[in-house]
Amino acid sequence: MRCEINSGKALSAEYEFTVRFNEVDSMGIMWHGNYVEYLELSREAFGHKYGLSYLDDIYKQGYYVPVVKLEIDYKKMLAYGVKACVSVRYIPTLSAKICFEYEIAIKSGNGAKEIIATARTTQVFTDLQKNLVLDNPTFYEEWKEKWLS
Amino acid sequence: MRCEINSGKALSAEYEFTVRFNEVDSMGIMWHGNYVEYLELSREAFGHKYGLSYLDDIYKQGYYVPVVKLEIDYKKMLAYGVKACVSVRYIPTLSAKICFEYEIAIKSGNGAKEIIATARTTQVFTDLQKNLVLDNPTFYEEWKEKWLS
Amino acid sequence: MRCEINSGKALSAEYEFTVRFNEVDSMGIMWHGNYVEYLELSREAFGHKYGLSYLDDIYKQGYYVPVVKLEIDYKKMLAYGVKACVSVRYIPTLSAKICFEYEIAIKSGNGAKEIIATARTTQVFTDLQKNLVLDNPTFYEEWKEKWLS
Amino acid sequence: MRCEINSGKALSAEYEFTVRFNEVDSMGIMWHGNYVEYLELSREAFGHKYGLSYLDDIYKQGYYVPVVKLEIDYKKMLAYGVKACVSVRYIPTLSAKICFEYEIAIKSGNGAKEIIATARTTQVFTDLQKNLVLDNPTFYEEWKEKWLS
Repeated sequence: MRCEINSGKALSAEYEFTVRFNEVDSMGIMWHGNYVEYLELSREAFGHKYGLSYLDDIYKQGYYVPVVKLEIDYKKMLAYGVKACVSVRYIPTLSAKICFEYEIAIKSGNGAKEIIATARTTQVFTDLQKNLVLDNPTFYEEWKEKWLS
Repeated sequence: MRCEINSGKALSAEYEFTVRFNEVDSMGIMWHGNYVEYLELSREAFGHKYGLSYLDDIYKQGYYVPVVKLEIDYKKMLAYGVKACVSVRYIPTLSAKICFEYEIAIKSGNGAKEIIATARTTQVFTDLQKNLVLDNPTFYEEWKEKWLS
Repeated sequence: MRCEINSGKALSAEYEFTVRFNEVDSMGIMWHGNYVEYLELSREAFGHKYGLSYLDDIYKQGYYVPVVKLEIDYKKMLAYGVKACVSVRYIPTLSAKICFEYEIAIKSGNGAKEIIATARTTQVFTDLQKNLVLDNPTFYEEWKEKWLS
Repeated sequence: MRCEINSGKALSAEYEFTVRFNEVDSMGIMWHGNYVEYLELSREAFGHKYGLSYLDDIYKQGYYVPVVKLEIDYKKMLAYGVKACVSVRYIPTLSAKICFEYEIAIKSGNGAKEIIATARTTQVFTDLQKNLVLDNPTFYEEWKEKWLS
């Protein structure tokens, strides 16, 4: 319930990746800490798709959006060379936060998918001096107005 | 409640680190994904202290202990060069899991500490073919017997 | 001169990448150590293109190919979000080594390119017990026969 | 010859490290790209020892010192959990550069050492707008005067 409100719109994006040699640990599977980067890359894909990118849309408005909460549930392992996909979904919220849910999966040719992990992140707004901003920035209100209403 | 039972013993360890140049992102603070490595390093410190290390104690018994759940709450930021400390605490559980809680903090000379982040992880047991092991391995039962009773 | 012989064939591949948020250091540019991963990814692209991949072609024949020499010359900086391309070129050699040269560049729409860095690597063969193999493995001789003659 | 002049003084520092679980690749040895970070950490140890640290001494004077050349020769492999040491030696030069040589080694109790890798880096000076500075900055001249003469 932490950061969810009802909304008719579902905003989502996808980021495909292939497990790199140096991301694999001595178990022969992608090290669990390396998932965090792919969550971020899917957020970037989302930002580019919907005009909410770190650099062009958020930083230029005078804000940082640090991650304040991260949760990952690992269900399967990812071997070197495997191609997987992060699906990221925007979770609308009234408070001055940006919330996402993620699903990392391997997709088969026939449309089936095997879920590897799920995750959730929460970001807040700070000004460029890194002070927390408690009210929704105007540009973010307008962004929500544009995409969610 | 996920993985806690009562126990009179508190097993814990500490791992000190200094934020590295290449761990800092373009905000000038430690990138949130880099915390995961320090959680692992504190688990290693714990393993060395209590005889539960990945290589010598767990792998040699025929097990891997992959992380299946990770949660981090980020409360403050960490700048380049800052010295911080992870305190890791073992959370006893009846099921075949290894659960830890973490606190990352900056400690002042006078004993005061500033909490930077808190975290929780859950690990399960697999055999070396990476099949989930649902029962507590004998060596882990004995380890718990030794340290917790 | 270290590892070059004459050959009429030029084997090369390319790998495009976009500088990630967490690859950028507090200077706001890609941390110099992160280039190493992109060299490797271009080698992988090469391996897939020419049938010399780590897993399917080399490891299955019973060999590892550890990097024994790495040289990088950094000429320009790479900012967050910039799209760049690694061009990797195979450098034929008589000895039991795999040598590559690299050029990392930003390509403009008009075909112009700005060179960011150049690099060279040398890899040797070991067996799966990690003992150095001084003679060219048969599969590698055949590979060179196929592609270079 | 690139960046060496005669000097009676040998300035050097050491940085000890233990190979981390997530630094090891699927060969079970430290991934070759991860050595770069330990070179940097030894430079930091050097900077702290001799008053030439990135943040307190160089950045505050208005300079960055990006690495423009990196060379590593890998001679042995490093397994997970192994303790090794980087020895870094300052190589005096007349031009506006900072040059270091490195030796990564495993030291035995009896004083013997096994050399794992050697390396060399060259850094230049830029101003905070990242423009190359061709003349030795005054603070660096004074630093050399203090330590080398």
